[in-house]
Amino acid sequence: MKLLLSAAALALPAIALAQPAPPSAASLRDEALRGDTLAYELLEGLTTEVGPRLAGTEAEARARTWAAERLRALGFSNVRIETFDMPVGVRGEERAEIVAPFPQPLVVTALGNSGATPARGVEGEVVAYDSMEAFRAAPAAEVRGKIVFVSHAMQANQDGSGYGPYGAARREGPTLASRRGALAILVRSIGTDYHRNPHTGVQNFAEGVRPIPAGALSLPDAEQLQRVVRRAGNRPVRLRLVMTPRQIGTRQSGNVIAEVPGSDLSAGTILIGGHLDSWDLGTGAFDNAAGVAITTAAAHRIMRAGQPRRTIRVVLFGAEEVGVLGGTDYHRRHGREGDVVLVSESDFGADRVWRADFALAPANQALQARIAAALAPIGIVSGRDPAGAGADLGAWARAGVAAVDLQQDGTRYFDYHHTPDDTLDKVDPEQLRQNVAAWTAMLWEAANAPERIEPFAAAAR
Amino acid sequence: MKLLLSAAALALPAIALAQPAPPSAASLRDEALRGDTLAYELLEGLTTEVGPRLAGTEAEARARTWAAERLRALGFSNVRIETFDMPVGVRGEERAEIVAPFPQPLVVTALGNSGATPARGVEGEVVAYDSMEAFRAAPAAEVRGKIVFVSHAMQANQDGSGYGPYGAARREGPTLASRRGALAILVRSIGTDYHRNPHTGVQNFAEGVRPIPAGALSLPDAEQLQRVVRRAGNRPVRLRLVMTPRQIGTRQSGNVIAEVPGSDLSAGTILIGGHLDSWDLGTGAFDNAAGVAITTAAAHRIMRAGQPRRTIRVVLFGAEEVGVLGGTDYHRRHGREGDVVLVSESDFGADRVWRADFALAPANQALQARIAAALAPIGIVSGRDPAGAGADLGAWARAGVAAVDLQQDGTRYFDYHHTPDDTLDKVDPEQLRQNVAAWTAMLWEAANAPERIEPFAAAAR
Repeated sequence: MKLLLSAAALALPAIALAQPAPPSAASLRDEALRGDTLAYELLEGLTTEVGPRLAGTEAEARARTWAAERLRALGFSNVRIETFDMPVGVRGEERAEIVAPFPQPLVVTALGNSGATPARGVEGEVVAYDSMEAFRAAPAAEVRGKIVFVSHAMQANQDGSGYGPYGAARREGPTLASRRGALAILVRSIGTDYHRNPHTGVQNFAEGVRPIPAGALSLPDAEQLQRVVRRAGNRPVRLRLVMTPRQIGTRQSGNVIAEVPGSDLSAGTILIGGHLDSWDLGTGAFDNAAGVAITTAAAHRIMRAGQPRRTIRVVLFGAEEVGVLGGTDYHRRHGREGDVVLVSESDFGADRVWRADFALAPANQALQARIAAALAPIGIVSGRDPAGAGADLGAWARAGVAAVDLQQDGTRYFDYHHTPDDTLDKVDPEQLRQNVAAWTAMLWEAANAPERIEPFAAAAR
Repeated sequence: MKLLLSAAALALPAIALAQPAPPSAASLRDEALRGDTLAYELLEGLTTEVGPRLAGTEAEARARTWAAERLRALGFSNVRIETFDMPVGVRGEERAEIVAPFPQPLVVTALGNSGATPARGVEGEVVAYDSMEAFRAAPAAEVRGKIVFVSHAMQANQDGSGYGPYGAARREGPTLASRRGALAILVRSIGTDYHRNPHTGVQNFAEGVRPIPAGALSLPDAEQLQRVVRRAGNRPVRLRLVMTPRQIGTRQSGNVIAEVPGSDLSAGTILIGGHLDSWDLGTGAFDNAAGVAITTAAAHRIMRAGQPRRTIRVVLFGAEEVGVLGGTDYHRRHGREGDVVLVSESDFGADRVWRADFALAPANQALQARIAAALAPIGIVSGRDPAGAGADLGAWARAGVAAVDLQQDGTRYFDYHHTPDDTLDKVDPEQLRQNVAAWTAMLWEAANAPERIEPFAAAAR
């Protein structure tokens, strides 16, 4: 990045000081790369002045108030909050300990929608599997009345591609364990760090399946339990688990919406955003104060550069973590309005954008080329996967709206994802600025494109 | 290390297969470097089969049993346990939360000998200092009735030299805060990592000073509290703290002792060791199952190579963390027996030895040169500081007994020190083998030195 910065600085012609050139994707991009402070300021503000903001809680409501105030103060138009109701679950006590043959505590956290143990806990024998595949293949009788432990071998990948397959232990493990009569299930955290901070995350018991206690062990604890099982030999490994999450009923969540109005209403709207809510364990810096900050800062740069042709709408979604409730509510309300021509979402941390994926119609290949050209100088390649727009805006892309994904480097992402460690100190300000630069360049090209932005081939999705 | 291994393998003459050369420091060192598995096996065993082993608890007693059994099975002589009584404190609940102006939880842990809050906690206004120096210089009236927060700027150093000066916040902060009438004190953890695992550690209120609740915040939480204070502006920052450690009375701890008997009793004893106890938060892999494993594995290699001239005595100390009680008890009982001619301790993790420090008499410079020569090929330089032999054996060095310190790389040490993160996965087996190699070489030279090992100039210490 340092070389890029120097090159950008050197390239700035002296005449620009006397008579500013009109803004371009390149000039706005380099300005963001050199000196954006807004994104970090927003990221620090949200994570510090609100902190953790679990969906449906009073903390998430404070985040909405905080965001709406900030968006208004920054000069955005039509700042508004759309609320919706949702069921809310909160964390209770959580403790695990090996009772025999080697007594010692383990660090555990409940997964979303976990069943609860009695206050005194449950105690049972551990039955351990090295993968979700091994658990699926095991005889059902092996599991009845036991505490299932599913480990796995997820490794860090730049594109985050481990999350889908290895995440099965979290998504499908609890339902399968309950169906087989297990007392409880513990999975190795879906993560890649070696710190004693377990990774929570949502899971949903299938219809009609009784919720059982379902938790995640930190990686050091998961490997410790594997060693204990190995060293125990023929002796049963017994574990005691106290985990008392509870549902507290219906509460309110909501989406915060703001706009940079365009000059040509017939040209359509660019819809972007991230999510305001976080898991309760950390302050949600990577997930997803970063997305809130990056998209807001980039839209703000376009606004300051002069009115764009198209309206840019920033939506900061509520209740993403617990099941994409904000994104679903927003699409349900506005999906048929017909103004949205392109969607793009930031929800994969704060590390640099390394690849751009597109879902643009053949008629928009020139626009795609202009966006790619504006991104290439800051180290971003074009990918071959069609853009999907992420969790909150995916419904729009699936319905055929054009989309761009600015893919972030995910090498570190699953070190912090859904853990207490997702905090501001993990954010690299230089990589954050590169995100703002990439978003500013992409938004400039998309919002000001003179051609019509066509739907992406809907049937292909 | 890989180059070293290859060179060592290539250097092994073919004839050695037919007619083994007599063992030497170099051959034993390279054998350990290539293939030691005992140290890792012991380290894994102690941290897995016992886990955390707080001084004076039943877990520490299990560690003594485990160690004595392993030492006997390995063929050590005179394996015995010497017990002593000690007062024991155990952890209770620990929670902290900012109440105003930005409500959110913080991660805290109690320091050793902390006072307790009532079960419902205490609530007070935070008064924050950026260093222990700033806290010392502040007017006493500023502190009365408040929750003191002392931060600092410790950075990682290879030689661990930040621990002394920055550790003052933990060692002296609580006493000063209590003297000034503070409600409680929180210090930034004496550590260098950015994970939400606070660093505990011992502190002692000065004679006559009332114990107040004294805790450590993880680094992310300490920096968050600094930001909250800054962003609060003129608004008071209020914090609620629940911390309920308690003293449970007198319990038993002990030292485990084992020997490799020497052939020449008049030549004296080499006394080495590490400590068996750990803090309760982690499994004490770095601190100090590693020292137990390294010294035991090296002594075992000397034993297998043939009877050494001098007896090597391995002492695995109890209750080091809470105030060097095992080392003190051992020196009180045996300090006047007169047989010990050299002491050396391993208690700084499992990373590679990078420097050897000596406290050898002028008459033993040839021995020092032979040890240095045996260490240099595995990347160990000779330092200029006099060896001090560490916490448990320091009393011997201070009394004038010769000492050698095999200094370990401390760059990572304070990432894990006294936290839940001090677990087996942090141990690099290759660096652990280098430790065993260094210890084996040093022990070989010291145990078999034909010359008398003289006292180090006692007056100079």
